[in-house]
Amino acid sequence: MKHRFAAINSWLMVFTIGFASWTAAADKPGSELRVDGTRLNATMEHMKTFGMSDTGGSTRVAYSDENRVALSYISELMLQSGLMPRIDVAGNLVGRREGTVAGLAPIVSGSHIDTVPNGGHYDGIVGVMAAIEVARTLFEAGHDLDHPLEIIVWSNEEGGKTGSRSYMGSVAEGELGLLSLGDKTIGDGISFLGGYPDRLAENARNRGDISTYIELHIEQGAILDREGIAIGVVEGIVGIKRWNITVEGFANHAGTTPMGQRQDALYAAALIVADIRHIITAEPGKQVGTVGRLQVHPGAPNVIPGRVVFSLEIRDLDMDKVDQLFSRIRESATALAETNDTTVGFDQYYESPAAITDERIKNIVNNAADMLGLLSLHMPSGAGHDAQSMKHIAPLGMIFVPSKKGISHAPGEFTSKQQITDGANVLLKSIVALDDVFD
Amino acid sequence: MKHRFAAINSWLMVFTIGFASWTAAADKPGSELRVDGTRLNATMEHMKTFGMSDTGGSTRVAYSDENRVALSYISELMLQSGLMPRIDVAGNLVGRREGTVAGLAPIVSGSHIDTVPNGGHYDGIVGVMAAIEVARTLFEAGHDLDHPLEIIVWSNEEGGKTGSRSYMGSVAEGELGLLSLGDKTIGDGISFLGGYPDRLAENARNRGDISTYIELHIEQGAILDREGIAIGVVEGIVGIKRWNITVEGFANHAGTTPMGQRQDALYAAALIVADIRHIITAEPGKQVGTVGRLQVHPGAPNVIPGRVVFSLEIRDLDMDKVDQLFSRIRESATALAETNDTTVGFDQYYESPAAITDERIKNIVNNAADMLGLLSLHMPSGAGHDAQSMKHIAPLGMIFVPSKKGISHAPGEFTSKQQITDGANVLLKSIVALDDVFD
Repeated sequence: MKHRFAAINSWLMVFTIGFASWTAAADKPGSELRVDGTRLNATMEHMKTFGMSDTGGSTRVAYSDENRVALSYISELMLQSGLMPRIDVAGNLVGRREGTVAGLAPIVSGSHIDTVPNGGHYDGIVGVMAAIEVARTLFEAGHDLDHPLEIIVWSNEEGGKTGSRSYMGSVAEGELGLLSLGDKTIGDGISFLGGYPDRLAENARNRGDISTYIELHIEQGAILDREGIAIGVVEGIVGIKRWNITVEGFANHAGTTPMGQRQDALYAAALIVADIRHIITAEPGKQVGTVGRLQVHPGAPNVIPGRVVFSLEIRDLDMDKVDQLFSRIRESATALAETNDTTVGFDQYYESPAAITDERIKNIVNNAADMLGLLSLHMPSGAGHDAQSMKHIAPLGMIFVPSKKGISHAPGEFTSKQQITDGANVLLKSIVALDDVFD
Repeated sequence: MKHRFAAINSWLMVFTIGFASWTAAADKPGSELRVDGTRLNATMEHMKTFGMSDTGGSTRVAYSDENRVALSYISELMLQSGLMPRIDVAGNLVGRREGTVAGLAPIVSGSHIDTVPNGGHYDGIVGVMAAIEVARTLFEAGHDLDHPLEIIVWSNEEGGKTGSRSYMGSVAEGELGLLSLGDKTIGDGISFLGGYPDRLAENARNRGDISTYIELHIEQGAILDREGIAIGVVEGIVGIKRWNITVEGFANHAGTTPMGQRQDALYAAALIVADIRHIITAEPGKQVGTVGRLQVHPGAPNVIPGRVVFSLEIRDLDMDKVDQLFSRIRESATALAETNDTTVGFDQYYESPAAITDERIKNIVNNAADMLGLLSLHMPSGAGHDAQSMKHIAPLGMIFVPSKKGISHAPGEFTSKQQITDGANVLLKSIVALDDVFD
């Protein structure tokens, strides 16, 4: 709801003196609000300075010096935006502005600023800088929310979503000893950012502890870019299952073994790899299936392959569909292996369940885009995001903005200033609406 | 021809005193001669002591201590067999008995005794020990040949046929600096055995320098073993060409890239690998084609493969057929790549031309088997052998004996005592006939 500016905390006064109070001028409260796109994109530019790589990309891996310095800069921006910053036990940077109605759980928005080595300047960063600009816009306009507003910079997204997963209570103790993408263990990295790895359990949240969670992110696919559409209304983050598939044949001399006597594990594997694609694409839908890794043993040009091990990954919003596709693949692969005097085995080693977004939030995002005159498209997120960690805690929403050619995790990652501004305005309108709609 | 024993060199006297002279008793000279199978197999057993591995295999790589000690043992056997041993400049052990007709080039038989690490006890060794037993049988029977007889233990067969290739003059100077299968460079290894790597050129032979070359070897395939046939009459050593084939697609996110937008290098490569087998097997003949090595880049389960590099090897006695098969593969692969939004490139990196055996020698081997009541089968050698190095120097012949299940280069390599004895007797009869037939 709209409210006149009120000094909630005395420290906020420092930044707010001199701002005009908000005056009602439009049909719906907040409907005239717009982020300052120039200011937002200036903060995006400034973020590039923390870990610019030789190739023009960004090397700001989690827990690095660059990561920590960038968080200081963002803390300053939070203070200027009416948000009280703190580092939580998991090394997340949380900026909070209180709401006007006592006892409400916060509306949370966030993303991450850590990158892969030689990554891009937009993945994660857009969501953080836009959320802060939204808070600043509300703050400067004197638009108070009923709910507290928390903007969170999740730690170590690229190295395993450690920060957001601490909210699920699912960071295993053993993970803390693992090396992150940089030169520190995850545990040491959390300490380096100011967190307390041995107190991670304090971060666990239950359903109701957060009112709603909404995250803006670049699409990381080429769908919005190709279609020329400004806003993706995310239907959910797809579930993922991964298997190792092993085809066993018999390694033998490539010169002395007649074609009819071979038990060639690679020939059988090739038939299966081709078949997997045919099974995945045989029915309508947005499911994807990928064989990304394949190893041949012994792997010499003059030896018939005796064993081939390859990965299979299937993603879809519907985990039942993932399972059905895998069953079909297993059945077909088993027959193909048998026909070619080989055997095949399947070993599932990874599962990330789908995280479906909330219907009401999809409508809110859709309406926000409409109000702003922006075209939008409902789509799944094929990539994982911090948002999925919130699925058992709060109603979820995600907003996508286009990513040029879908390039991601590379210096060529690009989203235009206008596209970023559009996304931030949709986030602004959505947060104002969430404050109305949710308890 | 048959001849009474004559003391060619006084040193031979030491070993020959007391042997009965040969007396004509059969229709054809030498037709009653038989090797001593018990003695032959005892030498095979003794050879196992030089480098027996923990798993019961043989680790007697070229230029190792075990290799050198085994050559000393074989030198003794040569002396006992009327052969004068010497190490040539390439580290080959050459045992020579002079012939009775002046000016004739030698009949040469040989093979190798070096093994791959943890290899078997038969590959190469059967050919060496049988040839020495043949020489001993002739020597003890007082059966003199018109031609000199040379039994050669070729050096470093497993590491690149260095010894036999020195006869072709084709060992490049650069090879001498390469590490062999053991811990020495090839140059140091040759010196270690008593050769002179800087004088390798002295070993080069021209056409006519050798009368005929014949080599007994285990089949290294399972054809004779499966068919229950004692003798393979080798039609030639197949030619080999090898290519690296590169499929270029576009590496992309496995979650965010829809199936219809993928340029999946592994999917295209899988279609091509399957297609290669179909093309190779589509027409009659003994040609073989193998994809033994395949590498996927970047090779992560969650990344669509952007590049796949794999080997293609084609072998046949007819190099034109090898070329025709490759042309068909190239054409088909190019079309498959294009259909799937990828490109494919071909880079030939190896060629070993076919070495066809001599018609007369094939007949001689065939007849020798017949005379001994042994079934024989004409067949190509799919594996390479020292014999192929002689193809521009002398008429070639090869005799195969069965190898259990075709196992080779592994401890499970096995040829029975009877099979070895049968092969040696065919070699004996063949050498006697070669002496008659060739100048």
